[in-house]
Order: sequence, then structure tokens, then C-alpha cells
Amino acid sequence: MKHVAVFGAGRIGRIHAANLAALPGVQVRYVCDPVADSAASLAQSVGAEVVSIDAAFADPAIDVVAITSPTDTHSELIGHAAAARKHIFCEKPIDLSVPRAVACAEAVKAAGVACMIGFQRRFDPTFNAAKERLARGEIGVPEVLIVTSRDPGAPPAQYLKASGGIFRDMLIHDFDVFRWILGDEAAWVSATGSCLVDPEIAEIGDIDTAAVTLRTRSGKLCQINTSRRAAYGYDQRFEVLGSTGLLACGNHRPTELVQMDANGVHSDKPEHFFLQRYRDAYRLEVAHFFECLQTGAPFRTTIEDGVQAQKLADAAAESLKSGQAVVL
Amino acid sequence: MKHVAVFGAGRIGRIHAANLAALPGVQVRYVCDPVADSAASLAQSVGAEVVSIDAAFADPAIDVVAITSPTDTHSELIGHAAAARKHIFCEKPIDLSVPRAVACAEAVKAAGVACMIGFQRRFDPTFNAAKERLARGEIGVPEVLIVTSRDPGAPPAQYLKASGGIFRDMLIHDFDVFRWILGDEAAWVSATGSCLVDPEIAEIGDIDTAAVTLRTRSGKLCQINTSRRAAYGYDQRFEVLGSTGLLACGNHRPTELVQMDANGVHSDKPEHFFLQRYRDAYRLEVAHFFECLQTGAPFRTTIEDGVQAQKLADAAAESLKSGQAVVL
Amino acid sequence: MKHVAVFGAGRIGRIHAANLAALPGVQVRYVCDPVADSAASLAQSVGAEVVSIDAAFADPAIDVVAITSPTDTHSELIGHAAAARKHIFCEKPIDLSVPRAVACAEAVKAAGVACMIGFQRRFDPTFNAAKERLARGEIGVPEVLIVTSRDPGAPPAQYLKASGGIFRDMLIHDFDVFRWILGDEAAWVSATGSCLVDPEIAEIGDIDTAAVTLRTRSGKLCQINTSRRAAYGYDQRFEVLGSTGLLACGNHRPTELVQMDANGVHSDKPEHFFLQRYRDAYRLEVAHFFECLQTGAPFRTTIEDGVQAQKLADAAAESLKSGQAVVL
Amino acid sequence: MKHVAVFGAGRIGRIHAANLAALPGVQVRYVCDPVADSAASLAQSVGAEVVSIDAAFADPAIDVVAITSPTDTHSELIGHAAAARKHIFCEKPIDLSVPRAVACAEAVKAAGVACMIGFQRRFDPTFNAAKERLARGEIGVPEVLIVTSRDPGAPPAQYLKASGGIFRDMLIHDFDVFRWILGDEAAWVSATGSCLVDPEIAEIGDIDTAAVTLRTRSGKLCQINTSRRAAYGYDQRFEVLGSTGLLACGNHRPTELVQMDANGVHSDKPEHFFLQRYRDAYRLEVAHFFECLQTGAPFRTTIEDGVQAQKLADAAAESLKSGQAVVL
Repeated sequence: MKHVAVFGAGRIGRIHAANLAALPGVQVRYVCDPVADSAASLAQSVGAEVVSIDAAFADPAIDVVAITSPTDTHSELIGHAAAARKHIFCEKPIDLSVPRAVACAEAVKAAGVACMIGFQRRFDPTFNAAKERLARGEIGVPEVLIVTSRDPGAPPAQYLKASGGIFRDMLIHDFDVFRWILGDEAAWVSATGSCLVDPEIAEIGDIDTAAVTLRTRSGKLCQINTSRRAAYGYDQRFEVLGSTGLLACGNHRPTELVQMDANGVHSDKPEHFFLQRYRDAYRLEVAHFFECLQTGAPFRTTIEDGVQAQKLADAAAESLKSGQAVVL
Repeated sequence: MKHVAVFGAGRIGRIHAANLAALPGVQVRYVCDPVADSAASLAQSVGAEVVSIDAAFADPAIDVVAITSPTDTHSELIGHAAAARKHIFCEKPIDLSVPRAVACAEAVKAAGVACMIGFQRRFDPTFNAAKERLARGEIGVPEVLIVTSRDPGAPPAQYLKASGGIFRDMLIHDFDVFRWILGDEAAWVSATGSCLVDPEIAEIGDIDTAAVTLRTRSGKLCQINTSRRAAYGYDQRFEVLGSTGLLACGNHRPTELVQMDANGVHSDKPEHFFLQRYRDAYRLEVAHFFECLQTGAPFRTTIEDGVQAQKLADAAAESLKSGQAVVL
Repeated sequence: MKHVAVFGAGRIGRIHAANLAALPGVQVRYVCDPVADSAASLAQSVGAEVVSIDAAFADPAIDVVAITSPTDTHSELIGHAAAARKHIFCEKPIDLSVPRAVACAEAVKAAGVACMIGFQRRFDPTFNAAKERLARGEIGVPEVLIVTSRDPGAPPAQYLKASGGIFRDMLIHDFDVFRWILGDEAAWVSATGSCLVDPEIAEIGDIDTAAVTLRTRSGKLCQINTSRRAAYGYDQRFEVLGSTGLLACGNHRPTELVQMDANGVHSDKPEHFFLQRYRDAYRLEVAHFFECLQTGAPFRTTIEDGVQAQKLADAAAESLKSGQAVVL
Repeated sequence: MKHVAVFGAGRIGRIHAANLAALPGVQVRYVCDPVADSAASLAQSVGAEVVSIDAAFADPAIDVVAITSPTDTHSELIGHAAAARKHIFCEKPIDLSVPRAVACAEAVKAAGVACMIGFQRRFDPTFNAAKERLARGEIGVPEVLIVTSRDPGAPPAQYLKASGGIFRDMLIHDFDVFRWILGDEAAWVSATGSCLVDPEIAEIGDIDTAAVTLRTRSGKLCQINTSRRAAYGYDQRFEVLGSTGLLACGNHRPTELVQMDANGVHSDKPEHFFLQRYRDAYRLEVAHFFECLQTGAPFRTTIEDGVQAQKLADAAAESLKSGQAVVL
């Protein structure tokens, strides 16, 4: 039995805690959150106890900490966990600062603890099936990746102030998909964007619509397009062109019902947002974490992956600012 | 907290027990199965105790019995449960004999216990969304229902000997869908069929491929086609033509991955079989059962529904035998 | 150069005349129609002359007559053409009376002229591709055929008075598809139906919604469902279940445009009606006719096919009337 | 009756000549091509005469010249046609040199002749339906355009030597789509690319895989990806994200046949190449040309559109060379 302390009882914390609690051989022992009500409510639903973070770290029975707290607490908690010799499951990103993310990676390595970063898309059944087929060579050598990644609607601009900007907040997932799917590192990054959805987002110095292009060391190409708003729902697709074919990952839908009437043929919008679309991915992700802990197999998404995605987000932000490509 | 005894630790028993155990406010207290190993293994996985059926009935703390044992035990267990004043969730069918099924329905009514029959298709998200749209009039008045219902492969003919024949074993679900979707009762039933898949099925006096047509009292039409074998997987679809449109329920697929190559455009086969396709339906079904128990709302699938589907299976069998239509 | 006389300048006559005129090696020389304006207009558009039917038959330069006039003129014109030793392309049906249709077939045979009946669905690119794959064994042995065949809307009941009823008017195409796709003859036919679309259709003794089931000599099954009204357009599909797979023929759409918005995902309705859906089929059909004339290869749709489809329509009508199956 | 001289009897000349010949009110009078056999064969099939280009220009009966000859002859022929006061239909591009293209536009304007450039994609039924819906505001304000444009296979590198490079040869169509769909001009262009398909293409100084990003004056974004090779066929799609929805243009397929078997669910590859995919577009394009000539309405694709697309191709080529974005 592995014992876990969950740090953060917000939306994503509740998802992970429920999935952890349902895993055989795993017990959520503590929930830690400064918002007492959230902590208590989550703790009750998974049969855990509310304690302080320090108490959780101090308990030698705790094997694993799941860091699902706000972004600006991640790097400090990773550091504590490494010092306390706890294995770490940490929601993306490691930190909005690449140097601090690198420091986390070094601390984790030095401490010899396991650390996985929560890029849940790698566990999405559709995306992962694409990766497996690529690995089997079913479309030959991958050459071009096109990623469409759109949220159903923009959060209030004020909320985005602390987000690190669209590249670090939203596209970090897509940068990870880029590295994972093409299996290569970026050599050239060009980004552009506009504020088309909400003028207040421009006022805080951010954009809401972006287009990023990457070329890898071996010449593979990737285009990512994103928007904070897709009126038809959460749009999460990618396509890989290979030398002998194409793999296209479509959206998931709530039902397979099609209605035909005088106005046309109608089917469901995509699953509403990430909690719905990635429901299976979140579940499979923590199962993978514990399976790797047990078998010693490497995580599918390491802290190094977290650092590299962060660097691409920085490069994109720099390219947007300068209007010119960034050579890595 | 409602306490449940699960009778039957086979494939379907394990599904229901796991779903029951995951329901808030529900505790699986007992598992009963003459196969000791199955009972023990299931009991352990849901935190229950293995006891005899009699012991389960005798415990006044038990509120509900879930009957997931072989078909030929259903009617007797329903009778016991009614006598013991336990609420009943019973897998379809009530019994292969309509008179015995009717007797069960009377016993349940006389005892005043709740009894729901497990026609899980009514809880399938796609099928249920179709029903809701019909109820809202989105395609006007329903006129024609076309049901395609095919298993991925036939079981051994010996296994089918005790099944009651294809109409009572497989099509009973489709007869229930017919009544549910068209909201009307059959006035005319015609069935035909062949043995095309496995000659041994003919030797035991059964068929493996069937076509049934029903006309309702108000003149609505329904065609059901079925086969014990679909090389591409479990095919579970229906379409309803209404006065102002069509609702088409497609198969569910494991992923939304599409591959294109020199041979064409390829997507996933349907979910493999009923345990996969109806995973959500089974979960929602038992949740509905306990919600109705609590609120007093009527079940979506009553014991009367079970009796009526059985009568249609009998009529189809009679029509196949005589080669002529049966007027109800 | 083959010279053709077209009998009938109505909707279907115009289609065929235009396709004939565009064929290399074919010249439409005469157009014959009692409605002088229609005849003149069509003749002008294809560079032909308006003459009487007798004059057309009398001209030894005419190789082929295309009979696209009203149904009740077909058998007489076929007889004349056989007597005049002209090859015949005749729109379906041969005649509403099976004995008269048989007599036509005999006359044609005796005269040694070529005669093809216009079952254009056999030339539809999608349907024909299905037939070719069946012939190549791509889904093994065909076992079950499900045909959905719906018009966008019912014509006035008065118009239907002379149609011969829904089985002879509409389903004759589907009966031909049944024979063509399953490659077997019916041994058992059962039909039922209702008048759900327009009560005036009941008043003239017809139905507007029908369900037919056929079993072939070798036990293959076919279900056909039809309606005079599909609010979403002309619905022309069939599916063949074979021992190793399924072939499903979908509707054709005007464009491949998909719109996604807050209300869902929307694509085009099917092509509006037969002139649109079967545009290619009509073109390929007459090309096939002249190719066979030249090479001596057998027509894909012979006059015998016309007779057999007619017999099935009669059987279905008899079954509807008696409420019982007809054994052939 | 409008009389046309067709210059060029190659692949695209034959397409246009056949479509012109089928137009009511249009007669193809002359075919001109230095390859005598090609000229004679095409002339015969459309009922035209083979003459020299000079003779065609000299005939006052000729109203229109259709320029379907090799690219390097376009600008000179446009100049001659303008001088001879013939209306002009010219295949894209005007010329590989922007200054020469501009000179053509000026000559045409000065002569007062009509000149349409053959960007046939604007006449594709699917693409044009998307444009019409955009114009009606069905997805609000367009914000992002994603274009996928891939050929089934690369021609020999030697053939590409005279093509002007991938941007001027292939992407010129996509640059026109960009301007047409977003209804705005580019302010910023960034291009990158690789030679991944055929190393000989690198040897002639070209690439075979490209990614271009454009930002318009009003901040709309466009990403274009292209490859000389798509193993699954000609891939011609685009998607427009608007403020209230998405329009996605899918590929056209030869049939609507779907096969399901033990290996999955299979449908047709896209139409093989441009002659198939754009069959309708080519037909509608020349019909539009003559309709505009008659009504005086402006062409959907003017010579100015040809010049602007050319400028974008130049900008992309410059960006690829420098590795940096080009500000327009």
C-alpha cells in the first residue's frame, strides 16, 4: 500500500484525489489546502485526513506527494518533497521560470526521488493510440505535426494576469505534445498572435489567439494554433503526417447520436472542457505513476519533459515579442 | 446507507457489484455464489462477505438484492426476495417462461417491493439521449424504428442450448428498445431467420441470424435485424424516423483516431462487446435504481417491461416456427 | 455512330437525352412527346428533331429507342420496338402487370433485340463499388441486407392513384437491389405498412410507410424500410452483412462542409432527390448500354431483372393485403 | 455565341476546353499548341480547328482567349491578348515574376479587356459554400484559418526546376485562399520548410515540405502546411475559426462506401488529384467567366488577385531564405 498526501483541493486536486483513491494499493492519507472547507470536503470524500503540509512531509508513512496546488507553489513543494525523500506527482508546470524549473529537476535528481509531471494528454486514449502507431511505424517517419488546441472560452483577464501568458499557460501542453509525438527537439521557433477575443487580455499584455511554428533539428515541422475561445467547445486535435500516411486525432463527443432534419445533419459538440475530455487521461496518468513506481520503469512524462516544454514556451514568448524567429 | 446482497459472482455480477460498491450511500454487504472462489474473489474486491443466499435473505439489514445469477434462478430468487421484503434489481430476463415471469410480477406487486429489470440499454448515453430528444419532439412523431443488433461472435452451440433461443436470449433487449423508443405496444409480429453462422446452432434447433418486424397498435413500424456474428465487432445501433427528422444512434469506439494511408481511411472498430459498450450504461443503471428507491420515482425499466419484452420474444419464436405473422 | 429516338420529354426523358447526347458515338436524332413544347425544347437542347413515334420507328437509321414516357406506355412501346428491330433502353418498370411484363420480355427475346431496363441504382458509384467488393469476397459471403429507401416528400395522393402502389412504384428499385446485391432469389416475402404521412394516401387504398422482409432460397435475409417522407431529404442507403465484414453505403452530400457552433456539429443533408443523388448513375447507365451494344457484353440490368422485381412487388402487395407471408 | 481560342492542349488545357465546349453559348473555335498531335486531338474532341496563335489573335471573331499553356508563356500571351482586345481567361500564375505580373495587370487594365485568373479553388462547391456562410456571418467574424494542402506525390525534381519553387508553384493557391477566406491582406509572413520527401529536390534548391504563417492587418492568423507527398492522396482542406463557430472543409471522396471488418472501419481515400477533386470547380469556373462577361459582374478571381498571391509567394520565399519573418 502506497500512502499519498494531496496538496491542493481545488478543481484539479479533486480529480487526482478521486482517481488516486480508486487505485488498488493506493491510499490518500492526507489532504492539505489552506482553504479549510475545500480540504475537509475533499478529505471526507476520499477517506483522508486534513493536515498541514509540514505534517504531511513529516510523516514517514507518506510515500508520495501529489502537488495540485497553484502554479506558484509548485517549485517550493517539489524542493520540500525532494528534501523529505517523497516521490512526486506534480501538475504542470514545474514553474513559470525556466531556471527555477531546472533547479527543481536538479533537486529531484540529487535526492533520487521519482518525479512525474502531469502532462495528461500523453495518457489520452486517442492521443496515446496515435503515439503507439507512430512507434510501430504505421505511417512511416513522422514529418509534420498540426496541433489545434482551443478552449471553449476565455477566463477573466484578471485571472490570466498570473498565468505567465498564453504560451506558458495553455501551449505548454502543446509543446509537450510536439516533443512527444515528433520525438525530436526544436531548433527553430516562430510565434505570432493577436488579441481577438477579449480586449482586456491585451490590456494585461497578453494575447488570446496564437500561431506557433517549430522546426526540429532533423527538419520536421510543427504548427500549433490556439485560441482562448471556441464557440463549439473544447477543441483538442492533432494530425501527424508521415512518409506513408496520416494519423488524425479527433475530438471526443458525449454521445454518438446524429440528428437529421430539415436544417441538416447534426452531431454532438466535443466534450465540454478538460475535465470531461481528459477524464480517462487523468485516471490513466496516476495509474501509470504508481505502476512505474512499482516496476521501476521510467515515467512517460518526466521532470525533464517539464523543463523542455517550459523552454519552448519561453522561446515562443520571445519570438512573439521580437516578431522574429528564435533559433535554439 | 443501503445494504445490498449480490447473488451471482459471474461476469455480469462483477460488473454490477463494482458499480454498486462505487455508489455513495450503498454498501455491498454480501456476495452469494455456489462457486466459492468466484464469490470470495468478488467479495474481497468490494469489501463484502460471502454468505449463503438464505443468510442474506435472513439478514434484516439487507435492503436490496441484486440478482445476477443464471437465468434459471431468477424467478425463484425474485419470489424469495418478495417474500423477504427486499427490493430487487434483477438482470434480464425475469424468466424464460412468460407465465412464470407474470407470476414474479404479481408476487412483487403483492409484496410491495421495488423491482427493476436490468435492460441496461435504456441507460446507454447515446440511446438515452435519443429517447430524450424524442420526448422533446425534436423529430416530431416517431414512425419507424430500425434496430441493428449483432454480437461479435457466436458462443458454442452447447452454451446456447439453455438460452431459450435467439429471440429470448438476444432480441429481448431489442424488444425492450422497441417498446421504449416507439412508446407503443406491438399489434403484429413477423419473424424469420436462418442458421448461417454455425451449423451446430441449427442442430440444437436454434437460428443465428434473424429478422423481426413489428407493427404497433397505432401503425408505427419496427424492423430488427440480428446476427450472432459481426466480424467487425459488437454492432449496436438504431435509427428512428420521425415526422420531422431522424435520430441515428451510432456505435461507440475506443478512440477517435483516424489513420489514412495508401489503403484508405481507417478508424476503430466498435467497442468490443457489451461489457465495453455498455460500461457507462451499467454504471448509470444501478445509480438510477438507488435514486428511484430514494425519491420514490418509478424505475425506467419495470418488471412489467420485462414481462412485455418476454411476450414479444415468444411471439417472434412462434412466428418463426409457423412462418406466419402473429397478431397480438 | 448510333442514332437514338427518345420517347418522352419529361423530367426523366430530359436527363437521359442529355446524357445520351454527351456520349461519343451517339446521336439523339428524334424526340417524341405528345406535349409539343416539351418535345421541341428538349429536341433543341440536344440537337434533335421532333417527329411522331411512328416516324421514328419507321426510320431505318434509328438503332435505339429510349423509352422514358409514362409507365402505362412502356409495354406497348417495347412491343413496337421489338417488331421494328430497334434496341431498347426502357425506364423502369416494364409494366405494372407482371403478365404484360413477361410478354414484353418474350417479344424482345423473339425479336433478338437488346433491351435494358433503367434500374439506375446499379450504376451509382457507391452502390456499384459495394457490389464489386462483394464480388471480390471482401466481406466473405453476404448474409443480411438492410435497405433504407425514403423519399424527401410524398407527391399528391391523386398523382399516386396511377402508380400501382408503393411496392410497384417505389420499392421496385429496392427489390432490384435485393436481387443484385444478394445474388439470390426470394423464397419468402412478408410486407407490412401504414399510412402515417398523408391520410389521403389511405383513401386511395395505398400506404406511405412500409417494411418488407425477404428470405432467399439459401436463407439470406433482407429487410427493406421505406417512407414517402424523410424531412431531411432523400435517404438512399443499404448495408450488407457478410461472414467477414460489413459494407455500408451512405448518402451523398452536396458539399463536405462541416459547421461547428454553440448548437452542435452540422453537415449537409443528403442530395435532395433522385435527379441529384443519381446524376452520375444516370450518366453511367446509358454509357453502359452503348458499351454493351458495341461489345456484345450482357447488360447489367436485363428485362428479366425487370420482370423479377415486378414479381416481388406483387408478392409484397399480396402479403400486405393478407397480413401473411407469401411463399414463392 | 462567344468564340474562344484555347492556347495549350496539355492536361489543364483539355479540362478547360471540354468545359468550355459544353457551355451553352460558347464555341471553342481554335486550339493552338506547338505539339501538333495534342492540338489536333483536342481540336477534334471539341469541334475546333488547329491554327497558329497569331492566326487566332488575328481573327476578329474570337472574343476570348483561354491561356492554358506553360507558365513561362502566360505574360506574353496576356500582353498579346490585351493588345488584340480579346478577353482573357488565364490559368494561374500570371508569371513567376511579380513585376511582370504587375505589368500584365496594367496592360489588361489599359486595354479594357476582361481578365480572370484560374484560381479554381474558389469555385469548389465545398470551399465556396464555406465562403458564402462566412459572408452570411454564420460563424461570426473569422479569426484563424488553417490550410492543409498536400499533393499525392512529388513530380521529378527536374520537372520542378522551372516551377519557381514550392511557394510559387503549389502554395500560390493557398495564398489566394487565405486572401479570399479571411478577406484581409497579410501584414506579416513567416515561412519555414524542409526537404523530407526527395533529396533531389534539395539539390535543385527547393523544399518539399513547408509551413507558412501569416498575420493580417487586422490581426487575423493563418497557418498553411504543405507537402509534396501524402501517401493517402490529394489532401485539400481548410478550417476557419470564427468568433461564434468553425467551418471545416473536408476532402471529397469517390464513393460513400464504408467497409467494416476485423481490421477496422475503412472508407475511401480522398479524390486522387486535382483533376478529380476540382472537376466541378473547373466546370463552374469557366461558367462564371462567361456569366460575368455577359452581365458585367466582377470576376471572383481577378488579375489583381493573381498579383497579390504572387507577392505572398515571394514573401514566403524570402522568409524561408532569411529564416526570419517578412513585414509587408
